[in-house]
Amino acid sequence: MTSYLEMCKSEVNTFLAALYPAQGPTKVLYDAMNYSLLTDGKRLRPTLCLATAETFGIARNQVLPVAVALELIHCYSLIHDDLPCMDDDDLRRGKPTNHRVFGEAVALLAGDALLTEAFFQLAKRTPGIPPDRQLKMVQIVAERAGAAGMVGGQTVDIEKTGQGGTLDDVAFIHLHKTARLIQASIELGALFPDISEAKRNALSVYGEALGLAFQMVDDVLDVVGSAEELGKTPGKDALVDKLTFPKFIGVEETLRRAQEIISNGQKALQSEGITSPYLFELQTTILERSR
Amino acid sequence: MTSYLEMCKSEVNTFLAALYPAQGPTKVLYDAMNYSLLTDGKRLRPTLCLATAETFGIARNQVLPVAVALELIHCYSLIHDDLPCMDDDDLRRGKPTNHRVFGEAVALLAGDALLTEAFFQLAKRTPGIPPDRQLKMVQIVAERAGAAGMVGGQTVDIEKTGQGGTLDDVAFIHLHKTARLIQASIELGALFPDISEAKRNALSVYGEALGLAFQMVDDVLDVVGSAEELGKTPGKDALVDKLTFPKFIGVEETLRRAQEIISNGQKALQSEGITSPYLFELQTTILERSR
Repeated sequence: MTSYLEMCKSEVNTFLAALYPAQGPTKVLYDAMNYSLLTDGKRLRPTLCLATAETFGIARNQVLPVAVALELIHCYSLIHDDLPCMDDDDLRRGKPTNHRVFGEAVALLAGDALLTEAFFQLAKRTPGIPPDRQLKMVQIVAERAGAAGMVGGQTVDIEKTGQGGTLDDVAFIHLHKTARLIQASIELGALFPDISEAKRNALSVYGEALGLAFQMVDDVLDVVGSAEELGKTPGKDALVDKLTFPKFIGVEETLRRAQEIISNGQKALQSEGITSPYLFELQTTILERSR
Repeated sequence: MTSYLEMCKSEVNTFLAALYPAQGPTKVLYDAMNYSLLTDGKRLRPTLCLATAETFGIARNQVLPVAVALELIHCYSLIHDDLPCMDDDDLRRGKPTNHRVFGEAVALLAGDALLTEAFFQLAKRTPGIPPDRQLKMVQIVAERAGAAGMVGGQTVDIEKTGQGGTLDDVAFIHLHKTARLIQASIELGALFPDISEAKRNALSVYGEALGLAFQMVDDVLDVVGSAEELGKTPGKDALVDKLTFPKFIGVEETLRRAQEIISNGQKALQSEGITSPYLFELQTTILERSR
């Protein structure tokens, strides 16, 4: 039986595959964008967006253009993070990183293009959604992905790597670098249905929790996982002295706290009477990666 | 007497100076953003946006948040273009380039942040503008700045530099790398007033012409200008064998064609009965830089 997660992933992949036909004088740019975009990935962020909207009866094909924008943002961030001046990684999702194939200049530009195209996707008129709510989606993504969100988190990550730091620094990095965009994925899904602001806030709280827990599990996998499972070089965090939860509190305590954070997120949903088999399946998958 | 251009520049500078207070764990990121953003520049793109809207009676303070978004985009593109993997420039607007001061990683992130924050500015609700028209502004900027616009132009520029190329390649590069964002600046200004689509189209045609002419004059200045006038290293285009108009047709013919392109743009405005002392002052300033 195909899981909900697999079904969403398949629809996202189909949408992405048709998005950027590589042709014309800028073919190499589109090739580089597609190289990273079409590599097999979890498609977690678009799937969370689809799952949240579907919880309230919104059809996936209405949500897809907005949902894939989140994957474009995620993909740009991976390409730029892998560059030599940043994390200098050779392997991503089991393949050579973008700049190893296309060179640094084109990889940088492919990242810039994907970030910009994400906003094009978000701003294309979506039938049935009031335009002011679509503008709100643009605002949310810009805030969650920008200096006050993902880029800010990556800045502190780069600054602190190899420089010591504290558990508070790790919490700041994970919240901004990873959790904010995952939170945005759920917040965008929650802007499709006509629901109360209280419900939207509860989903936002849950999204932040899920994002934090996801990154904590990711930290653990870097300690206990294999290159095959990860699709990237394991043990790299410790090697370059990256700030992670296990570095400060160990694997077991990291997993216990991740579970606790998720439970608090669930309480926010419960207090608004939100139950979602879709989100529950995703959450289980995220947490069980570490088993 | 303060010219209109100087007045707009001053208002843009005041707005930009208050935009990103540098504090908190990501202070270095904001410092890097402000370093490039607050360096003295022409502020051509926001001024074109203000001038276009004001032609139809729209007050500058209503347009400013949207207008500065165009400067954020321009500024991000300069930071990324100057990086070692791209044009590898040491001097910009008379000061050391961003990565020379903050390092490559932070410079890259500052560019990413400025691009993202531009969309935040564009999506903040502007009173008196219908939300669907504001969404249209986001679409235009994303299209003009993305793979089909500025980033596409920069890709071909990087690919062709030192590799020969043709006059058609130069035309493609200038149209996409430079003219598209200048065109967008005028297109966004034209979305503030309630005017006909025919008038908006005429302004768009004029904006493309102005953008092309601007870059052609810039090519000429790289041949005939001094470092003091330019705020960057002159003669660099020829040194690295960059594709420019003078390389193929010489300085005089480049200036003649720039004038011809501007005249065609003006005809589009005239056919819609649009006369604007503001845009005329700007256009004159752009063309006379080369005298």
